[in-house]
Amino acid sequence: MKHEITLQETQAIAIGAGILGTGGGGNTYLGRIRLEQELKQYKTPCHIIDAEDVPDDVLVCAVSTMGAPTVGIEKLARGTEVKDTVRALEEHLGQPFAALIIGEIGGSNALNPLIAGIQLGLPVVDGDGMGRAFPELQMDTFCIAGISPSPLALGDVHGNIVIFDNVESALRAEEFGRNLTIEMGGSAALVMPIMTGQEMKANIIRGTLSLAQAIGETVLDCRAHNRGPAAAVAKLGNGRVLFQGKITDVERRTTQGFARGRLKLAGFSDPDNMMEIVFQNENLVAWHNEQIVCTVPDLISIITLEEGEPVGTESLRYGLRVAVIGMPAPRELKTDAALKVVGPAAFGYPEIDFHPMNGNLL
Amino acid sequence: MKHEITLQETQAIAIGAGILGTGGGGNTYLGRIRLEQELKQYKTPCHIIDAEDVPDDVLVCAVSTMGAPTVGIEKLARGTEVKDTVRALEEHLGQPFAALIIGEIGGSNALNPLIAGIQLGLPVVDGDGMGRAFPELQMDTFCIAGISPSPLALGDVHGNIVIFDNVESALRAEEFGRNLTIEMGGSAALVMPIMTGQEMKANIIRGTLSLAQAIGETVLDCRAHNRGPAAAVAKLGNGRVLFQGKITDVERRTTQGFARGRLKLAGFSDPDNMMEIVFQNENLVAWHNEQIVCTVPDLISIITLEEGEPVGTESLRYGLRVAVIGMPAPRELKTDAALKVVGPAAFGYPEIDFHPMNGNLL
Repeated sequence: MKHEITLQETQAIAIGAGILGTGGGGNTYLGRIRLEQELKQYKTPCHIIDAEDVPDDVLVCAVSTMGAPTVGIEKLARGTEVKDTVRALEEHLGQPFAALIIGEIGGSNALNPLIAGIQLGLPVVDGDGMGRAFPELQMDTFCIAGISPSPLALGDVHGNIVIFDNVESALRAEEFGRNLTIEMGGSAALVMPIMTGQEMKANIIRGTLSLAQAIGETVLDCRAHNRGPAAAVAKLGNGRVLFQGKITDVERRTTQGFARGRLKLAGFSDPDNMMEIVFQNENLVAWHNEQIVCTVPDLISIITLEEGEPVGTESLRYGLRVAVIGMPAPRELKTDAALKVVGPAAFGYPEIDFHPMNGNLL
Repeated sequence: MKHEITLQETQAIAIGAGILGTGGGGNTYLGRIRLEQELKQYKTPCHIIDAEDVPDDVLVCAVSTMGAPTVGIEKLARGTEVKDTVRALEEHLGQPFAALIIGEIGGSNALNPLIAGIQLGLPVVDGDGMGRAFPELQMDTFCIAGISPSPLALGDVHGNIVIFDNVESALRAEEFGRNLTIEMGGSAALVMPIMTGQEMKANIIRGTLSLAQAIGETVLDCRAHNRGPAAAVAKLGNGRVLFQGKITDVERRTTQGFARGRLKLAGFSDPDNMMEIVFQNENLVAWHNEQIVCTVPDLISIITLEEGEPVGTESLRYGLRVAVIGMPAPRELKTDAALKVVGPAAFGYPEIDFHPMNGNLL
């Protein structure tokens, strides 16, 4: 595939990425505005390529923003953090990158690489390392496959740039990076991991940017026809609508660099019909009347009932009328090796088994 | 000066550096053992040169260990942290260093550069950036002179190496570095700042390694002649003995990466004769019967009464019989610009003026 993203497509991508964000990955409203600004300013589209278009022996890097979604909507970006951090890492390596990889397709982390791609004049690969959003950096298919997390780089809004030249493990990279991100004010550009084209192709989840766009277009189509979009979105993701109702309680705190908490929903007609969801940046486990109906790595996405607007964990509030959609994770996240890193136990729920939904996201 | 440090001199340097450490800079007992091991293993002395021996246009770097002295005696070093971190920074720059600079002459930070010098085959300059020990990294003559803190590098016992490619200020470097050091387990090798030979010569406090050795030799000489060494040490440092007595109370906690606290002493014959000292890694302010008698940047050093062994803030304990020595800081620390960074106000005592002792350390 060769595709050029234009101004007309940003809204669909932002909506779809928001839904794949399962509550996290950063608010896409601000990301979309920034992407549109770049498209206008540079008067050049963002070039999207297929993983197969990347030669085996070039270097590519995944990019994203590290931090809590609650911080992302309060603290504005300078807009060149990702670009500057990529350039610093190229200089450190003494080698250029041939393409950018979307580290995380969920939330504004789908949009940041597109912005950086325009700024750097680099193509962006259609695919990502998560097929959704996850709160911690070791939770992607590249780290799960054992690709070295270092060297990696973090950059902040003030131009501070930190290169982790050697890190003993991806988990330590997460701990160091999280700490530094907190000190940087709660959000930072992250460039990680660096891979060859071959390593990227062996591990990337393909087509997730196209999927985000398709989901967004479905939502926009439903809006145009005054239809609630939940069922159509769920179908595109091979999933189902888990619940419809209004939010009755939200408990949320930004702690240790994450937005953590729990929310409760009640059905419209039957207030005893309840759903409860816990989250760490992203929604993790959903209980329907105290029965588990969906767990990580499967996707639990909340959208507004009529408009289909994705609701991030930073935007949850009492009274919001929403649909909760469950979608099966991409197969790459459901291997034994992957479940050790992104299954319920990895998020502090060792007593909860992963009960996979049928099918796969892609 | 050209000098080669041999096994016979390590004890004197360790004692003298401990005394100049004013309570911090790391326990010199472990540092001395490690230095002796390196001297034996490499069968080569450590080459000491004068600042003037360094050409203007070469690159040099200051090295030290960041962390709390309390951690330094509990967590053993791997022994190659400084070397590995220097090498990583050389590679990042694509340029070698011509000599090592002692970042901090106080405590084991005087010995770490000697060890690294042997391992790296690099000479070490007789002098340092503090003339004593200070708790924070922006508190040296190089940062005070405005030499860029970045790029700088931190390395830990597990081989994790972090390069701060760009940092907006020395204070931010301290905040980032402190945070990361805590995450690294409370101590880390620090390589910072990088300078040209010319910049180094314009700002280094000269001869402090020789001074440390001279102080240590005086202590050893007093021991050999069964004399209490306090007066002789004070004289060498152009200072005076502030107090002799025993420790009656110690309040100490390791918090935010520092050993912080307060200690009380009482005179031997007159228990109403009291001294109180507050510290943040290093001793900061001394009150004699509620009158301030010495403040940073002047040196407040505690040594055991009979042996003249320096007592670090990590080793203070009830009942210890000690002498407290006050010594005037080097003149480089008493300029208006320097006092903003290392005067009492910089340590949270805005109400205390700096009342300089007469004279200068060197």
